[in-house]
Amino acid sequence: MDYRRFFEDAIDQLHAEKRYRVFANLERIVGRFPRALWRTADATREITVWCSNDYLGMGQHPAVIAAMHDASSRMGSGAGGTRNISGNNHPLVELENELADLHNKEAGLVFTSGFVSNEASISTIARLLPNCLILSDELNHASMIEGVRRSGAEKKIFRHNDVAHLEDLLKAAGKERAKLIVFESVYSMDGDIAPIATIADLAEKYNAMTYIDEVHAVGMYGNRGGGITDQEGLSDRIDIIEGTLAKAFGTLGGYITGPKTVIDAVRSYAPGFIFTTALPPAIAAAATQSIRHLKVSQEERRLHQRQSQLTKDILASANLPVMQSQTHIVPIHVGDPELCKMASDRLLDVHGIYIQPINYPTVPRGTERLRITPTPFHSDELVLELKDALVEVWTALGIPFAKDSTPSAETDERVVTLAVSKAGG
Amino acid sequence: MDYRRFFEDAIDQLHAEKRYRVFANLERIVGRFPRALWRTADATREITVWCSNDYLGMGQHPAVIAAMHDASSRMGSGAGGTRNISGNNHPLVELENELADLHNKEAGLVFTSGFVSNEASISTIARLLPNCLILSDELNHASMIEGVRRSGAEKKIFRHNDVAHLEDLLKAAGKERAKLIVFESVYSMDGDIAPIATIADLAEKYNAMTYIDEVHAVGMYGNRGGGITDQEGLSDRIDIIEGTLAKAFGTLGGYITGPKTVIDAVRSYAPGFIFTTALPPAIAAAATQSIRHLKVSQEERRLHQRQSQLTKDILASANLPVMQSQTHIVPIHVGDPELCKMASDRLLDVHGIYIQPINYPTVPRGTERLRITPTPFHSDELVLELKDALVEVWTALGIPFAKDSTPSAETDERVVTLAVSKAGG
Repeated sequence: MDYRRFFEDAIDQLHAEKRYRVFANLERIVGRFPRALWRTADATREITVWCSNDYLGMGQHPAVIAAMHDASSRMGSGAGGTRNISGNNHPLVELENELADLHNKEAGLVFTSGFVSNEASISTIARLLPNCLILSDELNHASMIEGVRRSGAEKKIFRHNDVAHLEDLLKAAGKERAKLIVFESVYSMDGDIAPIATIADLAEKYNAMTYIDEVHAVGMYGNRGGGITDQEGLSDRIDIIEGTLAKAFGTLGGYITGPKTVIDAVRSYAPGFIFTTALPPAIAAAATQSIRHLKVSQEERRLHQRQSQLTKDILASANLPVMQSQTHIVPIHVGDPELCKMASDRLLDVHGIYIQPINYPTVPRGTERLRITPTPFHSDELVLELKDALVEVWTALGIPFAKDSTPSAETDERVVTLAVSKAGG
Repeated sequence: MDYRRFFEDAIDQLHAEKRYRVFANLERIVGRFPRALWRTADATREITVWCSNDYLGMGQHPAVIAAMHDASSRMGSGAGGTRNISGNNHPLVELENELADLHNKEAGLVFTSGFVSNEASISTIARLLPNCLILSDELNHASMIEGVRRSGAEKKIFRHNDVAHLEDLLKAAGKERAKLIVFESVYSMDGDIAPIATIADLAEKYNAMTYIDEVHAVGMYGNRGGGITDQEGLSDRIDIIEGTLAKAFGTLGGYITGPKTVIDAVRSYAPGFIFTTALPPAIAAAATQSIRHLKVSQEERRLHQRQSQLTKDILASANLPVMQSQTHIVPIHVGDPELCKMASDRLLDVHGIYIQPINYPTVPRGTERLRITPTPFHSDELVLELKDALVEVWTALGIPFAKDSTPSAETDERVVTLAVSKAGG
């Protein structure tokens, strides 16, 4: 075994498949979001980020940063241990209470990432339940798939958002068997929404537990930012609501909320929770501040929806192939991994616009895309600039437009007016 | 299936086995480490923490906190995305360069926790290598065991630090087969050290890769804080050195360092890395500051060793059952889970001293213990207070002393002098 050679080959293979990833070296600029510094070997250049998961720009909110400063000045830079061994800190306890309240649940539990929260919670719940059957949406996130795998439980995959298929599987399993339905509210690559009410009905009918991932919805949907379950008044019909602190809330970490006993069981039995240093008090305090702000302020959500709708309309009006999306996520179809990477590179090099290519395995081959995430801070002017840049790149690289026509300046103005009136902005 | 009832029973079982954990609600006090506020339902009380994994108190270092403030003021509270999608930030790139330098390796890779770094790296390396055999020390940490499990590779467990046993297993596997030896430098519950040089010899002889976990050593051992491999001049003889930013470096996160191609393979293939939001720039900047400080300052390491030796000597002189330890970790044997919990409770309630009970599954049944971690900030006076408190608790609860005699005040003074001269302090 020649180890060095083996790993060289593994990397070469990624290059050959055009799947080798280069991480852009960025430095975001507080007060000027979505602007960032991009460092290369030769130079540092200012660019516009159009693919951030800091969906509402809360990572630069003065009150959030102030909370981080205050907690670290008083309690230090780290937690100093696992939750059990000296690392449990008061801001973390407050954060878990805040999260339980956000989702109208009895208890909350925070993890160091959303990935770990899904993996640890799904695997622990399904492993504890005797002979549990997991019913999992086929488009669930990698972290949920890892949780399902690690549980060792039997699983059945239902077709994406297909409630008839889900019902067939539930019926076949019977009412007595322990069952856990695992799904997302907003699927982040397509931006579509699950039929939550119907899934809750089925869970009730066939006596199944429900676990929903709301990472791409918390903070952004619902009157208090509790996600799609909040918006649709369904939080009490889903057993476990999982979310993240690292996207709309602008910090770091993941969490679950639910019935006290279930949360307590995950807390007590999940190795990925037990043996991990707690989140620093400064991160917990910043997250709590962000959640509290978004529980009362509607302005970020209103502007977020307005700018997302505007972006979809403006890009569609330029015949760019905007894929269907019910949410703030704006995917633009490319359909080829190499072209997708080239489009991303050209946007950055020529236009100073940063949008990562989304290729396999994140999305199925043939559906490669640019995934655009407008925020409240992407002004109308930036949207128009984005449109011009995309049209230039699409033309230069010969990527197919939606229809064979050329956009006009007049269209833009009409669409801005239309989008603004639709979004109530 | 009655889900609520089921989870109630699972929690009741933990209570019945005396394994139900209650997390103390703490608030550490910057500038007064190891003092902290302990909040209960009724009151808030000041206590002394004697079980922190912030081994050197770097979490309260002014330069570390200042780095956190500076980076969050300029770049915000979070990273805003995964490493690939807009979350890669300049302080994180700097941190990885710093870590590679610390361990004399070509490259470094940072994860959101030490648990994830072990799980993701071990599983990915062993999964990539064809027909890999993992050789794993029987006392490896839960995170390494998870990594081994998740790799799906065949594994052989060798007896703790038993190089003869390891050699038998290597010989049986043959030189051609891909092999990964997975072990720790400092085993955190007993404080003993692995025979690293011999393991490196064996790896060379039988053509195996080596992966060492240095989480309980980095920052604290070696002239630059590179761990036991640094102290023993062995860093270039081990392929992958894993460590944490959440213990001696006082912040959050875990990492690996090693050959560029191996690090690049983990970066490219590990789901637990790819699909996780990056560490916030403020955390990365704080960690870099901490590492840089400990690369040149010997004072923290000198005092750490002095106070650890003093603690061992003082407690042993009082006939407390101090378990053998080659390092800064001071385990005191109790041998019963309920007594261990009662001792911990009484230390906190009566003496304001916080030391978590260490029970099964963290250590084998029958070896339940208090695990004490002296830091440079635990003064001689605090050590004497600790000794008095432990003697009171041991007497009150009837826990066996090491020998049947009573310590005297004279002993203390002699031992302090002895310990100080041994540690060169």
